[in-house]
Amino acid sequence: MKSSAFHCEPVDAGRPPSARPLRLLIVSGCLFLAACIGSTAPALGQSARPGTAPKGANRGPADNFTGVVWVKPLVPPGSRTDCIVSEVTFEAKGRTVWHKHPNGQILVVTQGTGYYQEKGKPIRIIRQGESVDIAPQVVHWHGAGPNGRLTHIAIIPNVSRGGAVNWMQPVTDQEYGQAK
Amino acid sequence: MKSSAFHCEPVDAGRPPSARPLRLLIVSGCLFLAACIGSTAPALGQSARPGTAPKGANRGPADNFTGVVWVKPLVPPGSRTDCIVSEVTFEAKGRTVWHKHPNGQILVVTQGTGYYQEKGKPIRIIRQGESVDIAPQVVHWHGAGPNGRLTHIAIIPNVSRGGAVNWMQPVTDQEYGQAK
Repeated sequence: MKSSAFHCEPVDAGRPPSARPLRLLIVSGCLFLAACIGSTAPALGQSARPGTAPKGANRGPADNFTGVVWVKPLVPPGSRTDCIVSEVTFEAKGRTVWHKHPNGQILVVTQGTGYYQEKGKPIRIIRQGESVDIAPQVVHWHGAGPNGRLTHIAIIPNVSRGGAVNWMQPVTDQEYGQAK
Repeated sequence: MKSSAFHCEPVDAGRPPSARPLRLLIVSGCLFLAACIGSTAPALGQSARPGTAPKGANRGPADNFTGVVWVKPLVPPGSRTDCIVSEVTFEAKGRTVWHKHPNGQILVVTQGTGYYQEKGKPIRIIRQGESVDIAPQVVHWHGAGPNGRLTHIAIIPNVSRGGAVNWMQPVTDQEYGQAK
């Protein structure tokens, strides 16, 4: 690019001096905004915009989830590993109903911050980079916090021996609101 | 911030007009750079700088890996799910040796682009958001491409029944170089 392209002095000739800092601010702001937009590139198949479906994901059924939850199958039933693996994205306040797994479950948080709770225990805050190792038959729920998305990988092992999951009753707003 | 803080006209009074677009460029560039640095926040426990250990990770042993590979345990041996789960980060050209798993393995790519190959088949390019479902006893290797990091979650199921992994010979530079 030629340096003359940046020489805009003649355009300013009739303007007051105070217009120049303003222009500087506007141009800087636009560049800053462009960089920020560029930085929102999503991890995994996640869509950049909360509220819209991540690529390859569908809405989780209302019987199993409260609020808006997206499920992207990564390893469907029938794998010779005997695992089912999914990427699950919860919009703010989205959550599973209470449930348990005959052979347990592992969660690996890949984006955001959210909640995990086992029946009778306090709500645990779970963050990007953390995992949760859930023992067989432990009744629990997981989901996003109130202010933003949570995405985790969900691994269910040994599905041919006893099934994948037993869904139970919804997590009430009162139960959800007990997070500290 | 007071608007007068941006009024720098008196400082420029003795400078030629061409200095102003230059200053505008410098300030814009700095803001752009700041936004870009902010956008490099790593996913999972990954460190921002290639070549340095991700948080919670240690170097994979030279017997099992070629080049620089970092392994962060997420679910260690002994889980009631009977799975071992790790986050593995390969620096450019880093890779496993050839190996197989008695009960298979699942990879979920969380950052970057890399390679996966089963013995006798072409190298497959694997990308962020993709998963690989590896059947029991299939001889294979995985690793980063030549120009950047790959991070994946590695899930090994049913480790109490036959073990986790059988390591074999290194992937030669000639084998690695066959990627297209």
